Amino acid sequence: MVSVEEAISKVTAYFFKSSPITKSIHDSLGYVLAADVFSNIDMPPFPQSAMDGYALCIHKSLKYTIVGEVKAGDSKIFELQEGEAVRIFTGAAVPQSANAVMMQEKTSIENSELVLEEVPKPQQNIRPQAEQIRTGQLAIAKGRKLSPSALSFLATVGVLEVSVYPKPKVGIVVTGSELVQVGKPLAYGEIYESNSILLANTLKSEGIIDYTIYRVTDVYENTKNLLEKVTSENDFVLVSGGISVGDYDFVGKALRELGTQEIFYKVKQKPGKPLFFGKCTDCFVFALPGNPASALTCFYMYGLPMLRYFLGIEKPFLNRAYKKIAHDYTVKGIRAQFLKAIVTDDEVEILSQQSSAMIAGFINANAYVFVPEYSTEINKETLVEVILLP
Amino acid sequence: MVSVEEAISKVTAYFFKSSPITKSIHDSLGYVLAADVFSNIDMPPFPQSAMDGYALCIHKSLKYTIVGEVKAGDSKIFELQEGEAVRIFTGAAVPQSANAVMMQEKTSIENSELVLEEVPKPQQNIRPQAEQIRTGQLAIAKGRKLSPSALSFLATVGVLEVSVYPKPKVGIVVTGSELVQVGKPLAYGEIYESNSILLANTLKSEGIIDYTIYRVTDVYENTKNLLEKVTSENDFVLVSGGISVGDYDFVGKALRELGTQEIFYKVKQKPGKPLFFGKCTDCFVFALPGNPASALTCFYMYGLPMLRYFLGIEKPFLNRAYKKIAHDYTVKGIRAQFLKAIVTDDEVEILSQQSSAMIAGFINANAYVFVPEYSTEINKETLVEVILLP
Repeated sequence: MVSVEEAISKVTAYFFKSSPITKSIHDSLGYVLAADVFSNIDMPPFPQSAMDGYALCIHKSLKYTIVGEVKAGDSKIFELQEGEAVRIFTGAAVPQSANAVMMQEKTSIENSELVLEEVPKPQQNIRPQAEQIRTGQLAIAKGRKLSPSALSFLATVGVLEVSVYPKPKVGIVVTGSELVQVGKPLAYGEIYESNSILLANTLKSEGIIDYTIYRVTDVYENTKNLLEKVTSENDFVLVSGGISVGDYDFVGKALRELGTQEIFYKVKQKPGKPLFFGKCTDCFVFALPGNPASALTCFYMYGLPMLRYFLGIEKPFLNRAYKKIAHDYTVKGIRAQFLKAIVTDDEVEILSQQSSAMIAGFINANAYVFVPEYSTEINKETLVEVILLP
Repeated sequence: MVSVEEAISKVTAYFFKSSPITKSIHDSLGYVLAADVFSNIDMPPFPQSAMDGYALCIHKSLKYTIVGEVKAGDSKIFELQEGEAVRIFTGAAVPQSANAVMMQEKTSIENSELVLEEVPKPQQNIRPQAEQIRTGQLAIAKGRKLSPSALSFLATVGVLEVSVYPKPKVGIVVTGSELVQVGKPLAYGEIYESNSILLANTLKSEGIIDYTIYRVTDVYENTKNLLEKVTSENDFVLVSGGISVGDYDFVGKALRELGTQEIFYKVKQKPGKPLFFGKCTDCFVFALPGNPASALTCFYMYGLPMLRYFLGIEKPFLNRAYKKIAHDYTVKGIRAQFLKAIVTDDEVEILSQQSSAMIAGFINANAYVFVPEYSTEINKETLVEVILLP
């Protein structure tokens, strides 16, 4: 049995990343950059007009001779003399020989000649070449999670492929002879299985879609055989149930029999005491309690951070903060507790539904109140530590 | 030309939802419930053991006769007499004739007889039938976005299918003869197209994956023909570029020619002034400015809320708050402004990169500072309105 802090520290000690992979930016949303990315081009690649108007080679008069037109995308190159102008549009390449763009709203045409309403300022309305970034300059540093803006910026600077951390392959193993898949009829003594849906969708929410759900009843040989297969096929395995002390809790025994190295078993916390964390040859196993709220709490606190680190996220733990509690609270028991709660800007309120068998409390909760071991009374208005849910 | 507030109000006036669809809970993450969902079962469906131990029919002695065993999932029914016990495990059905469960750690076996270490309390360690929810009771109210916990709770109460709002079909139309797809070489005058990547990934981040990207150069007939096709094939159309006043900005003309009802054109804001919002027979069109930062700002402020409402989200606008600004700021121009900024718990800082042509500022920003029309100086430490980015 370890404390919450020891459990966190032991999981952290085994954090690891996989070798980076190369992916197209068209398919990299949410991936984390494994290497710095540098610009392939000057951006803009040429002096660019910021307006619809006229590019000018400035002279003293306000009258200019129009010698042509440059649309966005045109590659035609004009050599303007002083007093000459070309019609130009937003995004078009400003001729090197031009030194200002006058917006069209401040011009008129008289006898085919361009007349400006005001004196042009040198370089006005021209975006200089490489104003945004120069060829070879750092575009985005490694460690950045690729957002829509980041991906769009990579496209802007001509980068099609990036080195990112791969996503893990996760096995979800659901144990329990009482469990029936939703949609089928329930016999007496049976309940609907929900932890696979809980864990799979939590993975999905984190962008992890390469998961497989396996099911087994409480039969030792079947449990052992399945775990042998699942631990050889996945980077991480999440087991639901079968890890407590009952005669039909075969997960721990099977994992040990398969040579899984126990890193810790049982955490002094509520909910989620019977958590097993172990290392197999090629994967890590989190054997979670079967009660839904316990399973999710153990996953949020220990499993998810390890998966996020694998994804390249450097700060993978749930965010913490201190908030004033809105009411008195009497702590039951001596274990550390993760109490479902609702945090607002100003304060935090512990919810009434705290049973480890019930998932419903999580539908409204947006945080845990974390109560350390051996806490007793918590007084209204005191600061408590909250852990924000994803 | 309308103000920001008028634009928001006009978009809001056209908010609509589509007819609900039925989906399996296995494929509903992020969808919004269109109808209340009621429990199909009592949960638990039977009195359920919360412990591994013994279910007892209490009598005065601490010694009990063990008459059998109930594993989780067993449907066998025992009729216990006073002084009889059955071995029982967490999650198993407690016989109706039992009135307490004693955890195994507080028991021993002597001469095949069960001996308790303490007097059992009636109903202890029994989760009453329907403790979580009763058949027909409200499980989750309509309007709820389906989270992993919500989906798992629906499975728990035997609900396989739900009525949810469908996701929209979105067309993304990229205009501009200067645009080249990343991965191809750039000729003089050309730049890489990035707005399709920006908009597509922003949609993806919101769970909208049914989008199609279309491209057209600045040729009127092509623009018109493409827009005719795209507006007939999608619920919403996002156009990038071609909506300003240049001679080759054909989007507005084409939309009008196609009979699109103009709801507004141009907003007194920076960036993103040349925004067109219109209604076709079967879809709505947001014609966004081509500059990336302008396009994204218009989408966040007007397009995204309309799409979110379509998805069933009742509060679809980006969240707003007031924060102290960390520095003085001199406002340029009279239009309302959306300034990319970084918000922390305590304050907000406006970023230096504000050019409408640059998307890079959005990589670090997590908010806008919203500066109303006709603002001048903003003094350090004053409260400013911030709009939090998704």
